[in-house]
Amino acid sequence: MTTGPLRVALLGCGVVGSQVVRLLTEQAGELAQRIGVPLELAGVAVRRPARHADVPPELLTTDAEALVTRDDVDIVVEVIGGIEPVRSLLLAALHSGKSVVSANKALLADDGATLHDAAARAGVDLYYEAAVAGAIPLLRPLRESLAGDRITRVIGIVNGTTNFILSRMDATGAGFDEALAEATALGYAEADPSADVDGFDAAAKAAILAGLAFHTRVALSDVHREGIGEVTAADMASAKAMGCTIKLLAICERRVVDGARESVSVRVHPAMLPRSHPLAGVGDAFNAVFVEAEAAGSLMFYGRGAGGAPTASAVLGDLVAVARNRVSSSRGAGESAYAELPLEPMGETRTRYHIALDVADEPGVLAAVAGAFAELGVSIQTVRQEGRGDAATLVVVTHAARDADLAATVRRLAGMPFVRRAASVMRVEGMASE
Amino acid sequence: MTTGPLRVALLGCGVVGSQVVRLLTEQAGELAQRIGVPLELAGVAVRRPARHADVPPELLTTDAEALVTRDDVDIVVEVIGGIEPVRSLLLAALHSGKSVVSANKALLADDGATLHDAAARAGVDLYYEAAVAGAIPLLRPLRESLAGDRITRVIGIVNGTTNFILSRMDATGAGFDEALAEATALGYAEADPSADVDGFDAAAKAAILAGLAFHTRVALSDVHREGIGEVTAADMASAKAMGCTIKLLAICERRVVDGARESVSVRVHPAMLPRSHPLAGVGDAFNAVFVEAEAAGSLMFYGRGAGGAPTASAVLGDLVAVARNRVSSSRGAGESAYAELPLEPMGETRTRYHIALDVADEPGVLAAVAGAFAELGVSIQTVRQEGRGDAATLVVVTHAARDADLAATVRRLAGMPFVRRAASVMRVEGMASE
Repeated sequence: MTTGPLRVALLGCGVVGSQVVRLLTEQAGELAQRIGVPLELAGVAVRRPARHADVPPELLTTDAEALVTRDDVDIVVEVIGGIEPVRSLLLAALHSGKSVVSANKALLADDGATLHDAAARAGVDLYYEAAVAGAIPLLRPLRESLAGDRITRVIGIVNGTTNFILSRMDATGAGFDEALAEATALGYAEADPSADVDGFDAAAKAAILAGLAFHTRVALSDVHREGIGEVTAADMASAKAMGCTIKLLAICERRVVDGARESVSVRVHPAMLPRSHPLAGVGDAFNAVFVEAEAAGSLMFYGRGAGGAPTASAVLGDLVAVARNRVSSSRGAGESAYAELPLEPMGETRTRYHIALDVADEPGVLAAVAGAFAELGVSIQTVRQEGRGDAATLVVVTHAARDADLAATVRRLAGMPFVRRAASVMRVEGMASE
Repeated sequence: MTTGPLRVALLGCGVVGSQVVRLLTEQAGELAQRIGVPLELAGVAVRRPARHADVPPELLTTDAEALVTRDDVDIVVEVIGGIEPVRSLLLAALHSGKSVVSANKALLADDGATLHDAAARAGVDLYYEAAVAGAIPLLRPLRESLAGDRITRVIGIVNGTTNFILSRMDATGAGFDEALAEATALGYAEADPSADVDGFDAAAKAAILAGLAFHTRVALSDVHREGIGEVTAADMASAKAMGCTIKLLAICERRVVDGARESVSVRVHPAMLPRSHPLAGVGDAFNAVFVEAEAAGSLMFYGRGAGGAPTASAVLGDLVAVARNRVSSSRGAGESAYAELPLEPMGETRTRYHIALDVADEPGVLAAVAGAFAELGVSIQTVRQEGRGDAATLVVVTHAARDADLAATVRRLAGMPFVRRAASVMRVEGMASE
């Protein structure tokens, strides 16, 4: 039973960290009431102390290694990001009995298992609500509120940068490059936008979400990942023509294979989504996550996925929880990975495709196309021809089929003499009929 | 440290209780993995054992009083509802050291303080996620995820019956009676719909939400309550004409009065809401709650607010949490009511009104109407005249003002000689300009 103040070491003091300092200071009285004891900032590790005039100078240090194992530190809050040196710092903190609050999705997805093991061995907490979907309470609901239910699917918009870009392409008809330039100009995209645009950021979050939802360890390398760099204005126009928009989705599914064995599929890719789907209306840099559970049905969580104050709100929520646990000498729910469900390769995952083919407008084309689908075991839901003559386009939407069969079908079609080109090939999610 | 099975007493086995039994049975293995020890059903208290063929007969009992204090019971789950005898049963359970999971919004709103005190004295848990918004994880996010933030407002659609009725009125132009009849026929409304239609159910939930959001005890009697029985087809038409729909909203606000003192306003009433607001699209019997916090910004939670399986999902989530706490001999976050903010009377709350007046189409009417508003200190945002001659209607939307001043203005207007009648008077929420 702790009765004195709890001492917090903060690693990193950038956009998020400075907000953590601000909230810890401004809300000190309220936080103490909620925890039962006050929180005190024991030290703030930064690279260049001179740049942090808003932090009392005696708290600043460049020696993060010493800070995380100091005897007068109870809880370590990490908002630096990246894999090393953060992994070593957090392991040192856990080994010396500090509870850890982290916003580090890359590290959690890359090597969460090692951190969880260290926390369990030391009997301390490892919380990371801020690592996924910023301020949106999502990990705690998955880990605790739905702990008595069976989650079957999580579909989320978890990257604000790509959602801004796709929202602009949808609203203005702009191409990818133009929309990316706008995102960069407005500060929504970084100078090197690869982590966002190529889906790495979303894939790390998908790994974390799938792990919590399915009680199975999922690493970043288990996640099938496609970015939005190849989404064209033509794709968006095709989506619009069928009442859809395009979103970069993180999709985690639990599926029964062959009526018995269960497996898990985790993937990040752009997909067409009907405008009637609750995720379709999530615009700009907002995040939203749709969760389906057997008993609870469909749930949605919506809010700001990034930014200093929203992310700091999630960090502080974890900090209060971890502090309460220390006050009562207890530990929150740890990692739950008992299920150990196998990961399904992308080729085995069942998806649906939208395919627009520029074709020669001649008799027999439709029959030949339909034949290619049938031979590869892919069932067509709708097919329609747009335009005539040189401008003829065949638009096909399939039923759900093995992703490998769909990809093979597209390759087969592209090789057919009357197919000029595949103008748009994209997966479709969230439509009623499977 | 508990290592044997945890024994659960279930009070009530109706729509929700039978789903609790089903999930406890079907997911026994998974629940044991998540908790660390198995859960066992120790007994099920019902009024008529013969009606519960799905429960092993040796578990059924009509003696709830004996069940809740039995030595072999660790956790009591209550899904009976209503105030007595449930309050006595739960107090007896808490006094004898059982943790309690309840779905009982009426009891929590009516006398949560007594229950919380009993739980704190006994050092056990009192969880009630299922009491508000069914399956939607909402209380735990408010109580834990946002524990490091300052919540400023909670606006929710928390009653599925009234939301179904209003959605039908919006979609079909039907009047209240017709839409209620449809809801009754479809099983969305009970034979005596008063608890839903008159806003009692929503008011109980508002009291619980406000208490958690503002760390202040709020009782049902503190909640200003208006039902939807007087919402007319004309009101809905007026709402549509200004790009709004009508929803029954539970609104909890924290407000700074006179630049210093803080107060809390908790109310349930129908209001016009712009169609662009995320809550406007919440149709049928779904629930959704919009939360605004200083650091996190706007968050929304959406899902099924009622029904056996969704409510049971929330009960099971609490049950797992409470069981984990017992395994580790700890206790979750208890009541947090340190802030003790004063409750603001409805007349002092700042709201906005939409007022449609059937008026005589003669010179000077607009000037007289505008004068009445000005005299009572209410600022007009927009005014427009619809129709001419006998069909002339003046539609006024105000800026935010004291509710008492707005009500006085409406009374003043109704007494003016050229005003034939106030065709529609309703509060407006969620519009950008205050």
